[in-house]
Amino acid sequence: MPRLDFWYEFASTYSYPAAMRIEAFAASQGVAVRWRPFLLGPIFAAQGWRDSPFNIYPAKGRYMWRDLARICSALELPLQRPEPFPQNSLLAARVALALPESLRAPFSRAVYSAEFGQGRPISDRAVVGELIAALGEDAPSVLARAESPDNKAALKSACEEAQALGLPGAPACVTEGGEVFWGNDRVEPAVEWALGEGGRQ
Amino acid sequence: MPRLDFWYEFASTYSYPAAMRIEAFAASQGVAVRWRPFLLGPIFAAQGWRDSPFNIYPAKGRYMWRDLARICSALELPLQRPEPFPQNSLLAARVALALPESLRAPFSRAVYSAEFGQGRPISDRAVVGELIAALGEDAPSVLARAESPDNKAALKSACEEAQALGLPGAPACVTEGGEVFWGNDRVEPAVEWALGEGGRQ
Repeated sequence: MPRLDFWYEFASTYSYPAAMRIEAFAASQGVAVRWRPFLLGPIFAAQGWRDSPFNIYPAKGRYMWRDLARICSALELPLQRPEPFPQNSLLAARVALALPESLRAPFSRAVYSAEFGQGRPISDRAVVGELIAALGEDAPSVLARAESPDNKAALKSACEEAQALGLPGAPACVTEGGEVFWGNDRVEPAVEWALGEGGRQ
Repeated sequence: MPRLDFWYEFASTYSYPAAMRIEAFAASQGVAVRWRPFLLGPIFAAQGWRDSPFNIYPAKGRYMWRDLARICSALELPLQRPEPFPQNSLLAARVALALPESLRAPFSRAVYSAEFGQGRPISDRAVVGELIAALGEDAPSVLARAESPDNKAALKSACEEAQALGLPGAPACVTEGGEVFWGNDRVEPAVEWALGEGGRQ
């Protein structure tokens, strides 16, 4: 079965609709998805940005919020802007990585729903703990694992991998052959490409 | 018949596939297209950019060229990077605006084909003159009209309109109701939205 790496950042707006739909869509096409949380901070910092480009460039920001509202409306996803935007996503990313792989996708969708569906603060330990507990896991021990030196190093290494892949932003899909597709609007072409690669194997 | 304004910049890479396909697609759906040449320079300058963001941010640039190659390949459009990139698009934009409306679309497609299909320099008067002549028009008189004070003022005013609309880049489609859709990948949603507006009238 062909596989896609789905790279996502919890602070990223367009990662929200992509995360909510990618697994069902990819599965319907016979493509497996590997969930790869990472942080855009280091990549943006390398471009001289210390804030979201949607805040730095107001025309892009205004457009993005309107575009996202249309996209969410078409997908019947609620949309509420979290304050502040962007949210600090470090804790959520560490938790996503610390969880067993089978819980990574449901936890990640729960984070996006809380953040962009309900406008809740995902940097809040209590909020993140609640989402962990809702999956039937023990929040304190998962949080401790998330903040262990090993897990912090694993997230740092994922960010370096994302940078080495040349990801320009999030979300991004990377096929086993190394093709990069950036954006919620590239989920379909990425899955199609992954299928083509599978056929060529 | 519902109508879309198609805002395009001759230096813009993603405007190339959009320009080559928008008219046929919109017509097939019963939507008219009004061609609106403009310059991104003033909009980018307002964001502090004195070059294409694809040059300023190398990760975005590398991704864009690969993404564009995939898009052009799927549309069976040739792709050759013009040097330098971006091309100075002032003359071509002035000519597009100076031509009668019925020639604006075929001239614009001819410019994009020369620039990104064959890598030819579109700031070259001889190249632009050749494309004008191929439409059966008198190149010297069109070029003179293009550089008249009235036409220069008309292009400046179009750029101000684009800025007032909040266009974050090119290409962009704007419906009669004022909805903005940015990017080659938003041609279909824009046409669909324009149809919905038509139905609500």
